[in-house]
Amino acid sequence: MRHKEQVDVPDQPPAGDRRIEILDAAARAFMRQGFAATSLDRVSDEIGSTKGAIYYYYRSKSDLFFGVHRRGMELTEAAIRPPFEKHAGARDRLHAMAFAHTLLVMDQLPYLRVIAQGLELHLLERTNESERANLAEVAALREANENLYIRAIKEGVSSGELRPVDAKLIAKPVLGALNWTSRWYQPRPGETAAARKRLATSIADFVVAGLVKS
Amino acid sequence: MRHKEQVDVPDQPPAGDRRIEILDAAARAFMRQGFAATSLDRVSDEIGSTKGAIYYYYRSKSDLFFGVHRRGMELTEAAIRPPFEKHAGARDRLHAMAFAHTLLVMDQLPYLRVIAQGLELHLLERTNESERANLAEVAALREANENLYIRAIKEGVSSGELRPVDAKLIAKPVLGALNWTSRWYQPRPGETAAARKRLATSIADFVVAGLVKS
Repeated sequence: MRHKEQVDVPDQPPAGDRRIEILDAAARAFMRQGFAATSLDRVSDEIGSTKGAIYYYYRSKSDLFFGVHRRGMELTEAAIRPPFEKHAGARDRLHAMAFAHTLLVMDQLPYLRVIAQGLELHLLERTNESERANLAEVAALREANENLYIRAIKEGVSSGELRPVDAKLIAKPVLGALNWTSRWYQPRPGETAAARKRLATSIADFVVAGLVKS
Repeated sequence: MRHKEQVDVPDQPPAGDRRIEILDAAARAFMRQGFAATSLDRVSDEIGSTKGAIYYYYRSKSDLFFGVHRRGMELTEAAIRPPFEKHAGARDRLHAMAFAHTLLVMDQLPYLRVIAQGLELHLLERTNESERANLAEVAALREANENLYIRAIKEGVSSGELRPVDAKLIAKPVLGALNWTSRWYQPRPGETAAARKRLATSIADFVVAGLVKS
Protein backbone atom coordinates (compact mmCIF):
# COMPACT_ATOMS: atom_id res chain seq x y z
CA MET A 1 0.00 0.00 0.00
CA ARG A 2 3.02 2.31 0.07
CA HIS A 3 3.20 3.93 -3.33
CA LYS A 4 4.61 7.29 -2.38
CA GLU A 5 7.79 6.56 -4.27
CA GLN A 6 5.80 6.38 -7.49
CA VAL A 7 4.43 9.91 -7.35
CA ASP A 8 6.63 11.07 -10.20
CA VAL A 9 5.81 8.21 -12.55
CA PRO A 10 4.42 9.57 -15.86
CA ASP A 11 0.71 9.25 -16.77
CA GLN A 12 -0.31 10.20 -13.23
CA PRO A 13 -2.37 13.36 -12.64
CA PRO A 14 -0.41 16.35 -11.30
CA ALA A 15 0.58 15.05 -7.90
CA GLY A 16 -0.10 18.21 -5.87
CA ASP A 17 -3.59 18.83 -7.23
CA ARG A 18 -4.80 15.28 -6.78
CA ARG A 19 -3.32 15.02 -3.30
CA ILE A 20 -4.98 18.26 -2.25
CA GLU A 21 -8.28 17.17 -3.73
CA ILE A 22 -8.08 14.06 -1.56
CA LEU A 23 -7.11 16.09 1.52
CA ASP A 24 -9.99 18.53 0.91
CA ALA A 25 -12.50 15.67 0.73
CA ALA A 26 -10.96 14.03 3.80
CA ALA A 27 -11.11 17.29 5.77
CA ARG A 28 -14.82 17.62 4.96
CA ALA A 29 -15.48 14.01 5.95
CA PHE A 30 -13.50 14.22 9.23
CA MET A 31 -15.24 17.50 10.05
CA ARG A 32 -18.68 16.05 9.54
CA GLN A 33 -18.24 12.58 11.01
CA GLY A 34 -15.11 12.59 13.13
CA PHE A 35 -12.18 10.27 12.78
CA ALA A 36 -13.76 7.02 13.96
CA ALA A 37 -16.85 7.16 11.73
CA THR A 38 -15.06 8.29 8.56
CA SER A 39 -14.33 5.58 6.00
CA LEU A 40 -11.89 5.83 3.13
CA ASP A 41 -14.71 4.63 0.85
CA ARG A 42 -16.68 7.71 1.76
CA VAL A 43 -13.73 10.00 1.07
CA SER A 44 -13.01 8.39 -2.29
CA ASP A 45 -16.72 8.44 -3.23
CA GLU A 46 -16.76 12.16 -2.66
CA ILE A 47 -14.09 12.76 -5.26
CA GLY A 48 -15.56 10.19 -7.64
CA SER A 49 -12.63 7.89 -7.20
CA THR A 50 -11.59 4.63 -5.56
CA LYS A 51 -9.77 3.86 -2.34
CA GLY A 52 -6.74 3.03 -4.49
CA ALA A 53 -6.38 6.72 -5.36
CA ILE A 54 -6.08 7.52 -1.66
CA TYR A 55 -3.65 4.70 -0.95
CA TYR A 56 -1.48 6.12 -3.70
CA TYR A 57 -0.68 8.99 -1.31
CA TYR A 58 -1.72 7.80 2.16
CA ARG A 59 -1.21 4.33 3.49
CA SER A 60 -4.00 4.38 6.11
CA LYS A 61 -6.87 6.42 7.49
CA SER A 62 -4.69 7.74 10.29
CA ASP A 63 -2.01 8.70 7.75
CA LEU A 64 -4.68 10.64 5.85
CA PHE A 65 -5.86 12.21 9.10
CA PHE A 66 -2.32 13.40 9.80
CA GLY A 67 -2.19 14.76 6.24
CA VAL A 68 -5.26 16.88 6.97
CA HIS A 69 -3.77 18.16 10.22
CA ARG A 70 -0.45 18.93 8.57
CA ARG A 71 -2.13 20.86 5.76
CA GLY A 72 -4.31 22.72 8.28
CA MET A 73 -1.19 23.82 10.15
CA GLU A 74 0.58 24.80 6.90
CA LEU A 75 -2.43 26.83 5.74
CA THR A 76 -2.40 28.60 9.10
CA GLU A 77 1.26 29.41 8.80
CA ALA A 78 0.76 30.65 5.23
CA ALA A 79 -1.96 33.00 6.54
CA ILE A 80 -0.24 34.44 9.61
CA ARG A 81 3.44 34.54 8.68
CA PRO A 82 3.20 37.27 6.01
CA PRO A 83 1.52 39.76 8.40
CA PHE A 84 3.94 38.67 11.13
CA GLU A 85 6.89 39.50 8.84
CA LYS A 86 5.43 42.65 7.36
CA HIS A 87 4.18 44.76 10.23
CA ALA A 88 6.43 46.47 12.72
CA GLY A 89 4.14 47.79 15.45
CA ALA A 90 2.59 45.24 17.82
CA ARG A 91 -0.93 46.54 17.37
CA ASP A 92 -0.90 46.46 13.55
CA ARG A 93 0.96 43.19 13.42
CA LEU A 94 -1.34 41.35 15.81
CA HIS A 95 -4.41 42.81 14.16
CA ALA A 96 -3.26 41.69 10.72
CA MET A 97 -2.38 38.21 12.03
CA ALA A 98 -5.71 37.80 13.82
CA PHE A 99 -7.61 39.11 10.80
CA ALA A 100 -5.87 36.73 8.39
CA HIS A 101 -6.27 33.84 10.83
CA THR A 102 -10.02 34.40 11.24
CA LEU A 103 -10.56 34.76 7.49
CA LEU A 104 -8.68 31.51 7.00
CA VAL A 105 -10.95 29.72 9.48
CA MET A 106 -13.96 30.84 7.44
CA ASP A 107 -12.39 30.08 4.05
CA GLN A 108 -10.97 26.69 5.02
CA LEU A 109 -13.48 25.68 7.66
CA PRO A 110 -13.10 21.87 7.34
CA TYR A 111 -9.32 21.92 7.94
CA LEU A 112 -9.52 24.47 10.72
CA ARG A 113 -12.36 22.70 12.48
CA VAL A 114 -10.54 19.39 12.32
CA ILE A 115 -7.29 20.81 13.70
CA ALA A 116 -9.16 22.71 16.43
CA GLN A 117 -10.59 19.39 17.62
CA GLY A 118 -7.07 18.09 18.05
CA LEU A 119 -5.85 14.66 17.11
CA GLU A 120 -4.55 13.27 20.36
CA LEU A 121 -8.10 12.34 21.31
CA HIS A 122 -8.49 10.01 18.39
CA LEU A 123 -5.17 8.26 18.60
CA LEU A 124 -3.86 8.49 22.10
CA GLU A 125 -4.46 4.97 23.30
CA ARG A 126 -3.49 2.99 20.24
CA THR A 127 -0.61 4.72 18.51
CA ASN A 128 2.22 2.93 16.76
CA GLU A 129 5.70 4.33 16.22
CA SER A 130 4.94 6.01 12.90
CA GLU A 131 1.81 7.62 14.38
CA ARG A 132 3.78 8.93 17.31
CA ALA A 133 6.28 10.49 14.88
CA ASN A 134 3.38 12.09 13.00
CA LEU A 135 1.86 13.35 16.24
CA ALA A 136 5.16 14.96 17.18
CA GLU A 137 5.47 16.57 13.76
CA VAL A 138 1.96 18.04 13.85
CA ALA A 139 2.53 19.25 17.42
CA ALA A 140 5.72 20.99 16.27
CA LEU A 141 3.86 22.75 13.44
CA ARG A 142 1.15 23.88 15.87
CA GLU A 143 3.79 25.15 18.27
CA ALA A 144 5.60 27.05 15.52
CA ASN A 145 2.38 28.88 14.64
CA GLU A 146 1.70 29.65 18.28
CA ASN A 147 5.25 30.96 18.61
CA LEU A 148 4.56 33.62 15.98
CA TYR A 149 1.84 34.99 18.27
CA ILE A 150 4.04 34.66 21.34
CA ARG A 151 6.88 36.56 19.63
CA ALA A 152 4.52 39.28 18.39
CA ILE A 153 3.10 39.71 21.90
CA LYS A 154 6.53 39.64 23.58
CA GLU A 155 7.89 42.30 21.25
CA GLY A 156 4.83 44.46 21.90
CA VAL A 157 5.30 44.11 25.65
CA SER A 158 9.00 45.02 25.30
CA SER A 159 8.22 48.08 23.21
CA GLY A 160 5.60 49.19 25.72
CA GLU A 161 2.78 49.06 23.18
CA LEU A 162 1.08 46.16 24.98
CA ARG A 163 0.15 45.55 28.59
CA PRO A 164 2.82 43.67 30.58
CA VAL A 165 1.25 40.24 30.02
CA ASP A 166 2.79 36.77 30.14
CA ALA A 167 3.03 36.31 26.36
CA LYS A 168 3.09 32.52 26.46
CA LEU A 169 -0.01 32.35 28.63
CA ILE A 170 -1.99 35.07 26.87
CA ALA A 171 -1.33 33.52 23.46
CA LYS A 172 -3.71 30.77 24.62
CA PRO A 173 -6.91 32.86 24.97
CA VAL A 174 -5.84 34.83 21.88
CA LEU A 175 -5.75 31.60 19.89
CA GLY A 176 -8.96 30.51 21.60
CA ALA A 177 -10.78 33.64 20.45
CA LEU A 178 -9.58 33.00 16.88
CA ASN A 179 -9.83 29.22 16.66
CA TRP A 180 -13.23 29.10 18.33
CA THR A 181 -14.53 30.59 15.07
CA SER A 182 -14.21 27.08 13.64
CA ARG A 183 -16.66 25.89 16.29
CA TRP A 184 -19.54 28.30 15.67
CA TYR A 185 -19.09 29.77 12.19
CA GLN A 186 -21.49 28.57 9.49
CA PRO A 187 -21.30 30.21 6.07
CA ARG A 188 -24.61 31.80 5.10
CA PRO A 189 -26.03 31.47 1.61
CA GLY A 190 -25.04 34.52 -0.40
CA GLU A 191 -22.59 35.73 2.27
CA THR A 192 -20.25 38.31 0.75
CA ALA A 193 -16.49 38.56 1.12
CA ALA A 194 -17.10 41.98 2.68
CA ALA A 195 -19.29 40.42 5.39
CA ARG A 196 -16.54 37.93 6.21
CA LYS A 197 -14.00 40.71 6.41
CA ARG A 198 -16.20 42.71 8.79
CA LEU A 199 -16.52 39.66 11.01
CA ALA A 200 -12.75 39.03 10.95
CA THR A 201 -12.14 42.71 11.71
CA SER A 202 -14.44 42.60 14.77
CA ILE A 203 -12.67 39.56 16.17
CA ALA A 204 -9.21 41.02 15.48
CA ASP A 205 -10.33 44.28 17.16
CA PHE A 206 -11.36 42.32 20.24
CA VAL A 207 -8.08 40.44 20.45
CA VAL A 208 -5.94 43.54 19.99
CA ALA A 209 -7.99 45.56 22.47
CA GLY A 210 -7.38 42.78 25.00
CA LEU A 211 -3.65 43.31 24.69
CA VAL A 212 -2.92 46.99 24.17
CA LYS A 213 -2.34 49.47 26.92
CA SER A 214 -5.45 51.51 27.59
CA MET B 1 -33.15 -1.13 30.03
CA ARG B 2 -35.29 1.82 31.17
CA HIS B 3 -35.24 1.79 34.92
CA LYS B 4 -35.44 5.49 35.59
CA GLU B 5 -38.84 5.07 37.21
CA GLN B 6 -37.21 2.97 39.90
CA VAL B 7 -34.75 5.60 41.11
CA ASP B 8 -36.62 6.07 44.38
CA VAL B 9 -36.95 2.38 45.23
CA PRO B 10 -35.42 1.64 48.67
CA ASP B 11 -32.07 -0.20 49.04
CA GLN B 12 -30.55 1.77 46.16
CA PRO B 13 -27.56 4.05 46.79
CA PRO B 14 -28.38 7.77 47.00
CA ALA B 15 -29.52 8.43 43.44
CA GLY B 16 -27.75 11.74 42.89
CA ASP B 17 -24.34 10.62 44.15
CA ARG B 18 -24.25 7.42 42.16
CA ARG B 19 -25.50 9.10 39.01
CA ILE B 20 -22.85 11.80 39.31
CA GLU B 21 -20.15 9.23 39.96
CA ILE B 22 -21.18 7.55 36.70
CA LEU B 23 -21.23 10.88 34.84
CA ASP B 24 -17.79 11.80 36.21
CA ALA B 25 -16.33 8.50 34.98
CA ALA B 26 -18.07 8.90 31.62
CA ALA B 27 -16.77 12.46 31.21
CA ARG B 28 -13.21 11.24 31.82
CA ALA B 29 -13.64 8.38 29.35
CA PHE B 30 -15.22 10.55 26.63
CA MET B 31 -12.49 13.16 27.14
CA ARG B 32 -9.72 10.61 26.75
CA GLN B 33 -11.12 8.43 23.98
CA GLY B 34 -13.93 10.30 22.30
CA PHE B 35 -17.48 9.09 21.86
CA ALA B 36 -16.89 6.34 19.30
CA ALA B 37 -14.08 4.55 21.15
CA THR B 38 -15.64 4.73 24.62
CA SER B 39 -17.36 1.58 25.83
CA LEU B 40 -19.81 1.33 28.71
CA ASP B 41 -17.69 -1.52 30.05
CA ARG B 42 -14.81 0.86 30.40
CA VAL B 43 -16.91 3.44 32.20
CA SER B 44 -18.34 0.89 34.60
CA ASP B 45 -14.88 -0.62 35.19
CA GLU B 46 -13.64 2.77 36.26
CA ILE B 47 -16.17 3.02 39.06
CA GLY B 48 -15.73 -0.65 40.02
CA SER B 49 -19.18 -1.53 38.84
CA THR B 50 -21.09 -3.26 36.05
CA LYS B 51 -22.84 -1.97 32.95
CA GLY B 52 -26.11 -2.65 34.77
CA ALA B 53 -25.37 0.23 37.13
CA ILE B 54 -25.13 2.57 34.16
CA TYR B 55 -28.26 1.21 32.52
CA TYR B 56 -30.08 1.93 35.74
CA TYR B 57 -29.75 5.63 34.86
CA TYR B 58 -28.89 5.76 31.14
CA ARG B 59 -30.37 3.54 28.51
CA SER B 60 -27.54 3.81 25.97
CA LYS B 61 -24.09 5.23 25.37
CA SER B 62 -25.53 8.23 23.56
CA ASP B 63 -27.95 8.81 26.46
CA LEU B 64 -24.95 8.82 28.79
CA PHE B 65 -23.10 11.17 26.43
CA PHE B 66 -26.04 13.58 26.56
CA GLY B 67 -26.00 13.28 30.34
CA VAL B 68 -22.36 14.41 30.38
CA HIS B 69 -23.14 17.36 28.09
CA ARG B 70 -26.17 18.34 30.15
CA ARG B 71 -24.17 18.28 33.37
CA GLY B 72 -21.34 20.25 31.72
CA MET B 73 -23.83 22.95 30.73
CA GLU B 74 -25.43 22.95 34.19
CA LEU B 75 -22.04 23.26 35.89
CA THR B 76 -21.26 26.19 33.61
CA GLU B 77 -24.51 27.90 34.49
CA ALA B 78 -23.91 27.29 38.19
CA ALA B 79 -20.50 28.99 37.82
CA ILE B 80 -21.47 32.05 35.77
CA ARG B 81 -25.00 32.89 36.89
CA PRO B 82 -24.12 34.01 40.45
CA PRO B 83 -21.58 36.62 39.24
CA PHE B 84 -24.01 37.58 36.47
CA GLU B 85 -26.71 38.25 39.09
CA LYS B 86 -24.46 39.85 41.67
CA HIS B 87 -22.43 42.45 39.87
CA ALA B 88 -23.85 45.65 38.50
CA GLY B 89 -21.08 47.24 36.44
CA ALA B 90 -20.21 45.60 33.12
CA ARG B 91 -16.50 45.40 33.82
CA ASP B 92 -16.83 43.74 37.23
CA ARG B 93 -19.62 41.49 36.09
CA LEU B 94 -17.83 40.21 33.00
CA HIS B 95 -14.58 39.81 34.90
CA ALA B 96 -16.28 37.75 37.61
CA MET B 97 -18.09 35.61 35.02
CA ALA B 98 -14.93 34.99 32.99
CA PHE B 99 -12.94 34.24 36.14
CA ALA B 100 -15.50 31.72 37.44
CA HIS B 101 -15.83 30.18 33.98
CA THR B 102 -12.09 29.67 33.58
CA LEU B 103 -11.73 28.23 37.08
CA LEU B 104 -14.55 25.82 36.29
CA VAL B 105 -12.78 24.64 33.14
CA MET B 106 -9.73 23.79 35.24
CA ASP B 107 -11.72 22.22 38.09
CA GLN B 108 -14.03 20.16 35.88
CA LEU B 109 -11.76 19.63 32.90
CA PRO B 110 -13.34 16.39 31.59
CA TYR B 111 -16.85 17.85 31.34
CA LEU B 112 -15.69 21.14 29.89
CA ARG B 113 -13.42 19.51 27.36
CA VAL B 114 -16.19 17.18 26.22
CA ILE B 115 -18.74 19.97 25.82
CA ALA B 116 -16.20 22.18 24.03
CA GLN B 117 -15.78 19.42 21.44
CA GLY B 118 -19.50 19.55 20.75
CA LEU B 119 -21.78 16.62 20.24
CA GLU B 120 -23.25 17.21 16.81
CA LEU B 121 -20.11 15.74 15.30
CA HIS B 122 -20.65 12.39 16.92
CA LEU B 123 -24.31 11.99 16.24
CA LEU B 124 -25.26 14.11 13.29
CA GLU B 125 -25.73 11.47 10.65
CA ARG B 126 -27.50 8.78 12.63
CA THR B 127 -29.78 10.40 15.17
CA ASN B 128 -33.13 9.01 16.17
CA GLU B 129 -36.02 11.06 17.49
CA SER B 130 -35.02 10.85 21.15
CA GLU B 131 -31.44 11.86 20.28
CA ARG B 132 -32.68 14.85 18.32
CA ALA B 133 -34.72 15.92 21.34
CA ASN B 134 -31.62 15.56 23.53
CA LEU B 135 -29.54 17.53 21.01
CA ALA B 136 -32.09 20.33 21.09
CA GLU B 137 -32.14 20.35 24.88
CA VAL B 138 -28.35 20.55 25.17
CA ALA B 139 -28.25 23.27 22.49
CA ALA B 140 -30.81 25.26 24.49
CA LEU B 141 -28.71 24.98 27.65
CA ARG B 142 -25.63 26.14 25.74
CA GLU B 143 -27.55 29.05 24.29
CA ALA B 144 -28.89 30.07 27.70
CA ASN B 145 -25.31 30.25 29.05
CA GLU B 146 -24.17 32.23 26.04
CA ASN B 147 -27.11 34.59 26.54
CA LEU B 148 -25.83 35.53 29.98
CA TYR B 149 -22.65 36.83 28.31
CA ILE B 150 -24.63 38.53 25.55
CA ARG B 151 -26.84 40.30 28.11
CA ALA B 152 -23.87 41.37 30.21
CA ILE B 153 -22.13 42.77 27.11
CA LYS B 154 -25.27 44.48 25.80
CA GLU B 155 -25.91 46.17 29.13
CA GLY B 156 -22.29 47.34 29.25
CA VAL B 157 -22.58 48.79 25.74
CA SER B 158 -25.82 50.56 26.69
CA SER B 159 -24.29 52.02 29.83
CA GLY B 160 -21.29 53.22 27.84
CA GLU B 161 -18.84 51.17 29.88
CA LEU B 162 -18.01 48.92 26.92
CA ARG B 163 -17.04 49.64 23.33
CA PRO B 164 -20.01 49.71 20.93
CA VAL B 165 -19.63 46.07 19.87
CA ASP B 166 -22.15 43.65 18.40
CA ALA B 167 -22.79 41.71 21.63
CA LYS B 168 -24.02 38.55 19.95
CA LEU B 169 -20.98 38.37 17.71
CA ILE B 170 -18.38 39.32 20.31
CA ALA B 171 -19.74 36.77 22.77
CA LYS B 172 -18.25 34.16 20.40
CA PRO B 173 -14.55 35.10 20.74
CA VAL B 174 -15.16 35.81 24.43
CA LEU B 175 -16.39 32.25 24.88
CA GLY B 176 -13.58 31.04 22.65
CA ALA B 177 -10.96 32.66 24.88
CA LEU B 178 -12.54 30.99 27.92
CA ASN B 179 -13.49 27.59 26.52
CA TRP B 180 -10.18 27.13 24.72
CA THR B 181 -8.73 26.64 28.19
CA SER B 182 -10.22 23.14 28.05
CA ARG B 183 -8.10 22.49 24.95
CA TRP B 184 -4.66 23.37 26.33
CA TYR B 185 -4.87 23.28 30.12
CA GLN B 186 -3.15 20.39 31.89
CA PRO B 187 -3.07 20.40 35.68
CA ARG B 188 0.49 20.32 36.99
CA PRO B 189 1.50 18.13 39.91
CA GLY B 190 1.35 20.20 43.06
CA GLU B 191 -0.39 23.12 41.36
CA THR B 192 -1.92 25.38 43.97
CA ALA B 193 -5.38 26.92 44.03
CA ALA B 194 -3.63 30.31 44.02
CA ALA B 195 -1.84 29.44 40.75
CA ARG B 196 -5.16 28.51 39.14
CA LYS B 197 -6.69 31.75 40.31
CA ARG B 198 -3.83 33.78 38.86
CA LEU B 199 -4.31 32.02 35.54
CA ALA B 200 -8.07 32.63 35.60
CA THR B 201 -7.46 36.28 36.49
CA SER B 202 -5.10 36.76 33.52
CA ILE B 203 -7.63 35.31 31.11
CA ALA B 204 -10.49 37.33 32.59
CA ASP B 205 -8.31 40.47 32.37
CA PHE B 206 -7.71 39.79 28.67
CA VAL B 207 -11.41 39.28 27.93
CA VAL B 208 -12.50 42.40 29.80
CA ALA B 209 -9.74 44.55 28.28
CA GLY B 210 -11.00 43.43 24.86
CA LEU B 211 -14.43 44.90 25.62
CA VAL B 212 -14.00 48.03 27.71
CA LYS B 213 -13.59 51.50 26.31
CA SER B 214 -10.00 52.58 26.37
